[in-house]
Amino acid sequence: MKKKTIITISRQFGSGGREIGKKLAEQLNIPFYDKELIEIAAKESGMDKELFEEEGTRTSRGFHLLGALGYSLGGPLSTMTELSLNDRLFIVQSEVVKQVADQGACVIVGRCADYVLNDRDDVLHVFIHADMEDRKERAIHSYEVDERDIESSVRKIDKRRSNYYEYYTDRKWGAADNYDISINTSTFGIDRSVAIIKDVIENKEL
Amino acid sequence: MKKKTIITISRQFGSGGREIGKKLAEQLNIPFYDKELIEIAAKESGMDKELFEEEGTRTSRGFHLLGALGYSLGGPLSTMTELSLNDRLFIVQSEVVKQVADQGACVIVGRCADYVLNDRDDVLHVFIHADMEDRKERAIHSYEVDERDIESSVRKIDKRRSNYYEYYTDRKWGAADNYDISINTSTFGIDRSVAIIKDVIENKEL
Repeated sequence: MKKKTIITISRQFGSGGREIGKKLAEQLNIPFYDKELIEIAAKESGMDKELFEEEGTRTSRGFHLLGALGYSLGGPLSTMTELSLNDRLFIVQSEVVKQVADQGACVIVGRCADYVLNDRDDVLHVFIHADMEDRKERAIHSYEVDERDIESSVRKIDKRRSNYYEYYTDRKWGAADNYDISINTSTFGIDRSVAIIKDVIENKEL
Repeated sequence: MKKKTIITISRQFGSGGREIGKKLAEQLNIPFYDKELIEIAAKESGMDKELFEEEGTRTSRGFHLLGALGYSLGGPLSTMTELSLNDRLFIVQSEVVKQVADQGACVIVGRCADYVLNDRDDVLHVFIHADMEDRKERAIHSYEVDERDIESSVRKIDKRRSNYYEYYTDRKWGAADNYDISINTSTFGIDRSVAIIKDVIENKEL
């Protein structure tokens, strides 16, 4: 296989995907992008940073259909005045994802990066998931989500990610076949999951 | 994690999942079950082997709902007279899956084994998938599927597997979070996929 130097991580809420991405980037000594992408997107577009912070909710029939209407990710912002704010945010963010990928090896968490970078063959696409009990635990301890109705909160955040992903990509979020490898952190733990990903990209000649 | 000695493999048609299972069993020197399970199920139940060969099609509202009606996988065949033939075949087959798992380390391909053995913590559940182009290629060369309408044939077989799985398990076929690890053989190839699975079960202390 072609050497994979860029790693995208999609993840269920509370699965440890972000932590895996961070550790992986540290161990491989390459840049890590999650919220950092927002800073760049805000700076480049002149749009308010806070607008990017909450991944948008679906507001129209399906962004992926816009291609048929003549819009393209590569178009200048000035042609996007008819698009919704969320759609413009997505376009700006996607351009930033492509830019950082052009700069070389890195780890990118979220932002539909698996879809945005789908055409490149130097990217490994990873999905991280975990059993609900572990996700609830992590949500309480790492993200300080309220313990009351914790399962429903976790499911709601997943639902938002799933809606966002499916709106912009027309793919099924969490379907194994969007990714090169999917890993359950309840089975392997965080460190072993990092090791598995490192192993699969480093054994590039096999 | 608990040592994983039993491996279940679910797979998209044409992804190479069966070949991976076979190689894995050879390299680990443990039994391999695919069609072999049918022989055992036919022998034990006295039912015709040919009946088991085509994984059934959906005939009622959802097999997983039968539990609520008092049926259980553990019940004797004599109590199953009200069930459809397909449901009885599934029950017999599931019992055989449990039996071979009780006998120790093995590789089991298909048969909803990931669902049937869900309660055991010594089982690694794997999903194997691949890009459509590679699956078409494998379907033509390994399974002698007619080249005309090959993509539609591949999708039809997947659809049958997916219907069967979802009818009997009430889970989404191919959703990453049913499995411990999911691997794209278009990215890694067959031998590297075998090596990844061996690696994740052998590094059991991490």
